[in-house]
Amino acid sequence: MAVYLDHAATSPMPEEVLAAYSDALRLVGNPASIHGPGQAARELLESGREAVARSLGVDPVEVVLTGGGTESVNLGIKGIFWAQPGRRTIIAPRGEHHATIDAVEWLVRHEGAVVEWIELDALGRVRLDQLGAALAAAGDDVALVTALWANNEVGTVQPVAEIVAAAHARGVPVHLDAIAAYGQLPIDVHAVGADAVSVSAHKIGGPVGIGALALARTAKVEALLHGGDQQRGRSGTQDAAGAVAFGVAAARAQAALPLDGVAALRDRLVAGVLGSVEGATLRGDPEAAGRLPGNAHFTFAGADGDALLYLLDAAGVAVSTGSACQAGVPELSHVLLAMGVSEREARGAIRVTLGHDSTDADVDVLLAALPAAVARARLVAG
Amino acid sequence: MAVYLDHAATSPMPEEVLAAYSDALRLVGNPASIHGPGQAARELLESGREAVARSLGVDPVEVVLTGGGTESVNLGIKGIFWAQPGRRTIIAPRGEHHATIDAVEWLVRHEGAVVEWIELDALGRVRLDQLGAALAAAGDDVALVTALWANNEVGTVQPVAEIVAAAHARGVPVHLDAIAAYGQLPIDVHAVGADAVSVSAHKIGGPVGIGALALARTAKVEALLHGGDQQRGRSGTQDAAGAVAFGVAAARAQAALPLDGVAALRDRLVAGVLGSVEGATLRGDPEAAGRLPGNAHFTFAGADGDALLYLLDAAGVAVSTGSACQAGVPELSHVLLAMGVSEREARGAIRVTLGHDSTDADVDVLLAALPAAVARARLVAG
Repeated sequence: MAVYLDHAATSPMPEEVLAAYSDALRLVGNPASIHGPGQAARELLESGREAVARSLGVDPVEVVLTGGGTESVNLGIKGIFWAQPGRRTIIAPRGEHHATIDAVEWLVRHEGAVVEWIELDALGRVRLDQLGAALAAAGDDVALVTALWANNEVGTVQPVAEIVAAAHARGVPVHLDAIAAYGQLPIDVHAVGADAVSVSAHKIGGPVGIGALALARTAKVEALLHGGDQQRGRSGTQDAAGAVAFGVAAARAQAALPLDGVAALRDRLVAGVLGSVEGATLRGDPEAAGRLPGNAHFTFAGADGDALLYLLDAAGVAVSTGSACQAGVPELSHVLLAMGVSEREARGAIRVTLGHDSTDADVDVLLAALPAAVARARLVAG
Repeated sequence: MAVYLDHAATSPMPEEVLAAYSDALRLVGNPASIHGPGQAARELLESGREAVARSLGVDPVEVVLTGGGTESVNLGIKGIFWAQPGRRTIIAPRGEHHATIDAVEWLVRHEGAVVEWIELDALGRVRLDQLGAALAAAGDDVALVTALWANNEVGTVQPVAEIVAAAHARGVPVHLDAIAAYGQLPIDVHAVGADAVSVSAHKIGGPVGIGALALARTAKVEALLHGGDQQRGRSGTQDAAGAVAFGVAAARAQAALPLDGVAALRDRLVAGVLGSVEGATLRGDPEAAGRLPGNAHFTFAGADGDALLYLLDAAGVAVSTGSACQAGVPELSHVLLAMGVSEREARGAIRVTLGHDSTDADVDVLLAALPAAVARARLVAG
C-alpha cells in the first residue's frame, strides 16, 4: 500500500462511512415514491441532508444535493448568472479551479457574459482593492462574484467574509467554491453570508458522485438539469444512500475540526522538506491562519514536477503536481503563474495534502524519499 | 418487507453488485491522478465503462458516464441542440418523461428553441406519419429528434429504428431515452443507429447517481458541465466505484435477456387482474412484442389511483400511479391523456413493474389485495 498524500484529489472512505453506506445501499426505494419503501428512502435521504446542512451552517432546505463538486460549481455560477437576465459581468479571481474557469468561459463564449479576472498577490490571496474597483466599474451589470474559499493547489485561504461584504454592498450575489476548504476549516455559510457555496463529498471521505450546493433561501438560481423538480434548482432521482454516506462523512469531518493534529504533522513535513532539500520553496501562505491545515505546496527550482511525481510514486508515495495534466500533456499551474512564480520555478511544483488517516510514518517516508527524487528530477529537467 | 412491484422507479441492488461496489469503494485514488493509486482507480473505472459499453452495443470511448439518467437526457438534448447553432426546431413525441419535456421547454423558454410535439396512438406509439410530416415541414431548421425507447409509464416500445431512419434521411440527429427500456430489452445503439442514448444505473440494480449517455463517435454535443474535461462532453471527477457497480449490474442485466420469465409472470398478473377486477383496463400495447416484459399498467374506471396506491401500500404492496406526484399534488398522467384516455379513467391508473427478484408469491399478494382495494378506492373517488 502506497503512502497516500493526495487527500485533496480524493480522500479515502473511513470505515464508519463505508458501513453506513453499505447498509443504506441495501434499502429499496426511490425517495420520490409515496409508498412505504419510498418514504423510508426519503427519511434516509433527509437524515443525510440534515447532517450535510449542519456541517455547512445552513438549514436542510438550503442544501441542494448534486452529482458532485463540478455540478455544484456549474449550478452556482450558471444558475445565478441566468437568474439575472440583463446583467452580464462575472467577477472572479485568477487561480480558480477549472470548474469555475471553464464554466465562466462557456458563459462568455455561449451566453454573452463578460468576465473580469481579479489578480492574486504573491501568497495567492485575492486583491480586495481590485475586487472593489471591478465592482465599482461594472456597477449594475455585475451578475455575480465567484471565488474559491481556499485555493485547491496552494491552500491559501481567501478573505471570504470581505469578498461577500464587498459584493453585497453593491447588491451582487456571491458563489464560493469551498470544495478544497470543506473538512479542513469550519464552513459557516450563514455567518459568511454567501448566497451559494459548493462542496463535494469525496474530498472529505464520502462517495464520489455526490456533492452539494448550499443555496441561501433568498438566492435565485436557474436550474441546470431539468425534469421532475425533485429539488429546488435540480432535477434527478435523489441518491438516498449517497446522502447517508455524505452525511456521516460530513459529521465526522466537522467533529474533527480544528485539524490541529493534521496541521502539526504538516508543519513537521514543511520544516523537514525545507531543511533537507536545497532550493525548495513553500508556496501559498506560510502562516497557519491563512492556509489549509492539510496542505503543503512546494516548488523545487530546476526540477521537473511530473518527473518528481513519478519518482515519488516509484518510491511508494502518492502526491500531486497540483496542476491539471490532461491527456498526458503537462501544463504549468495557472495558480502559480497568477501568484507571480516564474515558469522555471512553476515547472517544479509538488502538492502534498494530508488527511484524516495521515501519520508520522507517512511523513517520514516522504522525507526519506524526497531529496534523492528531487536530485534526479533536476537531472531530467536538465 | 413489502412486496416491491415498482422496479421502474428504482430496482434493488443484487448481492453481486453490492459486493463489487463495496470492494471498489475501499479503493483510494482519483482516476485523474497519474500516480499508482490514481491509475488503479482509472483501471477500475475503465473496466466498468467497458461493461456498460457492451450492454449498449457501443465502444467504451462512446460511453459518457454521467451523474444519472436526468443528466444524460439533459446532455443528450441540450448538448445536441447547442452543437447546431442556427437550427431551432426540436421534434419529440407527446408522453415523454419529464426530463425530456422540462429540458425541451427550458430550451424553448431560454434558448429560443421551437418544439413540435408528435401525437401518440391509443397504445402509446409515436405516430410515424406525423413525425415524417414534421421533419418535412421544418426542413433544415430541425436540430434534433428525441424520443423514448419505451414509455416509462405504460411500457409501450417505440419503433426506434424507424424514428432514427426518418430523421437520418433528413440529416437530423436522434437522441433516445432508453432509461425505461434498459435491462428490459436489448439496447443495441449501433444497430439502431441513434446518435445518443440515455440510460441510468439504478433502474437495473446499479447505484443511484450514475448513468450514461452512449454518444456515437460522429455525434456532436456541447457540454453541460464544464471544468477539467475528464470526458468528452462532461467534466467532473469520474466515479470509479460507481462505474464498477454499474458495469456489474449492466452485465448481469444483459445476461438475463430476454426476460421470458418476467414476461410470463407479468402475463399471469395481467390475466389475474383483468379476470378479478371489473372495469380494469390494460393500458399500453397488449402484444408482448410491443411492451416491456416487466410492465403492467391498468386503469380502474371510477377509482382514485392515489387512494389505490395507499391502500395497496397498507396491504404491503408497493406500486406506482405512474404519474408525477409532486409535493403531494396529484396530477393526471400526461401519457394516458396523450393516448386519448379520458380524465375520469386516467384518474384510476396503477403501474405495476416487475424485476429480477419478482416472484409468483409477489403476484399472488397483489392479486389477493387488489379487488378489495379497488372497491374501496372507488368509494373514495365517489
